[in-house]
Amino acid sequence: MVKQKRENYAVIGLGQFGSAICQSLVDANQEVLAIDIDEEKVNEFTNIVTRAVIADAQDEDTMKELEIGSFDHVFISIGQNIQTSIMATLLTKELGAKDVICKAENESHARVLEKIGADQIVRPERDMARRIVFHHLQPNIVNYLMLSDQVTMAEVKVDNPNFVGKSLNELAVRNTYHINVIAIKTEGKVNLSPDANDKLRLNDLISVVGYTTDVNQFNEDAQSSSK
Amino acid sequence: MVKQKRENYAVIGLGQFGSAICQSLVDANQEVLAIDIDEEKVNEFTNIVTRAVIADAQDEDTMKELEIGSFDHVFISIGQNIQTSIMATLLTKELGAKDVICKAENESHARVLEKIGADQIVRPERDMARRIVFHHLQPNIVNYLMLSDQVTMAEVKVDNPNFVGKSLNELAVRNTYHINVIAIKTEGKVNLSPDANDKLRLNDLISVVGYTTDVNQFNEDAQSSSK
Ligand SMILES: Nc1ncnc2c1ncn2[C@@H]1O[C@H](COP(=O)(O)OP(=O)(O)OP(=O)(O)O)[C@@H](O)[C@H]1O
Ligand SMILES: Nc1ncnc2c1ncn2[C@@H]1O[C@H](COP(=O)(O)OP(=O)(O)OP(=O)(O)O)[C@@H](O)[C@H]1O
Ligand SMILES: [Ca+2]
Ligand SMILES: [Ca+2]
Ligand SMILES: [Ca+2]
Ligand SMILES: [Ca+2]
Repeated sequence: MVKQKRENYAVIGLGQFGSAICQSLVDANQEVLAIDIDEEKVNEFTNIVTRAVIADAQDEDTMKELEIGSFDHVFISIGQNIQTSIMATLLTKELGAKDVICKAENESHARVLEKIGADQIVRPERDMARRIVFHHLQPNIVNYLMLSDQVTMAEVKVDNPNFVGKSLNELAVRNTYHINVIAIKTEGKVNLSPDANDKLRLNDLISVVGYTTDVNQFNEDAQSSSK
Repeated sequence: MVKQKRENYAVIGLGQFGSAICQSLVDANQEVLAIDIDEEKVNEFTNIVTRAVIADAQDEDTMKELEIGSFDHVFISIGQNIQTSIMATLLTKELGAKDVICKAENESHARVLEKIGADQIVRPERDMARRIVFHHLQPNIVNYLMLSDQVTMAEVKVDNPNFVGKSLNELAVRNTYHINVIAIKTEGKVNLSPDANDKLRLNDLISVVGYTTDVNQFNEDAQSSSK
């Protein structure tokens, strides 16, 4: 990792998401104030974060005392009770916090949070569900990254017998698919300057970049037709 | 998207994660049986999924009747009550389900699920928290993909004045950082064969691949030093 700036974070709500945010921030050596109304949750974090406090995020006096408005970033991760999440967000913004990131339960919750000034809204369960379903339906694309609406980088698993034992040259990958091969991973080892004459092996992962339609076509052809 | 196979999915537990799994599967034209013990949750899905059923996932007779063992994939997304999640997973595996994907609340929950035969365990809140924190701390890496422990592909934002107006050649990117430039995105448009003599512009996104330490070094240098 590159050297990182150290900033002040407050995390309100130590459910699964808030807890994981705290842990990740601490792992990255950031200063973290953890807040929850539930004593048990707070106790779990006393030895982990910079400071852990039992407090009701809807209570203005307490939030003022904690100087919630002065933090560089405030995460609000109160899910089950949407009204509480909304009130806590409103209060935190009113107290001057510049960057408030809120977890939303659903679309209408998200819209309200946006209206009252949340700077970023996240929906972890939904976003992860989408990723997991994508991977289920495209098992041979083990990883991907969309560079734009039209351009995708993908790691494609080769298990079509017609590909195995052939080289990129023999498959005329560049001319057929108009994609660039960035790397080839064989048994966990990545080759960043693959030789176009090397033979592909079963379950090699080929990193390619190109127009999404071309990448998808390559992925389709590279996978065993039995699927 | 490439043409997709159509398979049978059962989703048990329609909380935030289970709901989103249902929706994503339906969007991808898959057959989905949605199950929850809560009538309200089930009613929300009657017009969305193939079939929605009010049922207790711990009840063996009901699960047998629903032929839960015959589905290609079963998602179990019962969070709050860990014991229920465990019993439902055990039962589903005993009834013969080949691919059972479970949402876990924490590390010990995950370990139990693995022991009793869960085929995949997911922790959406934790995984998304890690991603969000990473993006917060590395704001100039707008996107990344780890090709291995040591190799990373990243989209890096250029906002260092010393980079702006220079070409990749002038910056000697390849020799200095040992990274490959895959693409350059300027104002939303991706150039897949960037000319090494073209001048970089402020906020260009440069997609590079290389050893993680080199990519991080390039990212550090490419960002404005005021950060
Ligand atoms: N008024 C409040 N002030 C501070 N913390 C609160 C308040 N109300 C609820 N919380 C805390 O917020 C935390 C997160 O809430 P909860 O677990 O219900 O949300 P969730 O949607 O299940 O989120 P996750 O998926 O992250 O677990 C809980 O630990 C709860 O004690
Ligand atoms: N025995 C059961 N059989 C079927 N469904 C159940 C059973 N017990 C609980 N559920 C359902 O599981 C769903 C998910 O549970 P819950 O919302 O408590 O989990 P969660 O950890 O908050 O998950 P999420 O983050 O996805 O919201 C709820 O809709 C609940 O009604
Ligand atoms: Ca929770
Ligand atoms: Ca949750
Ligand atoms: Ca929850
Ligand atoms: Ca829930």
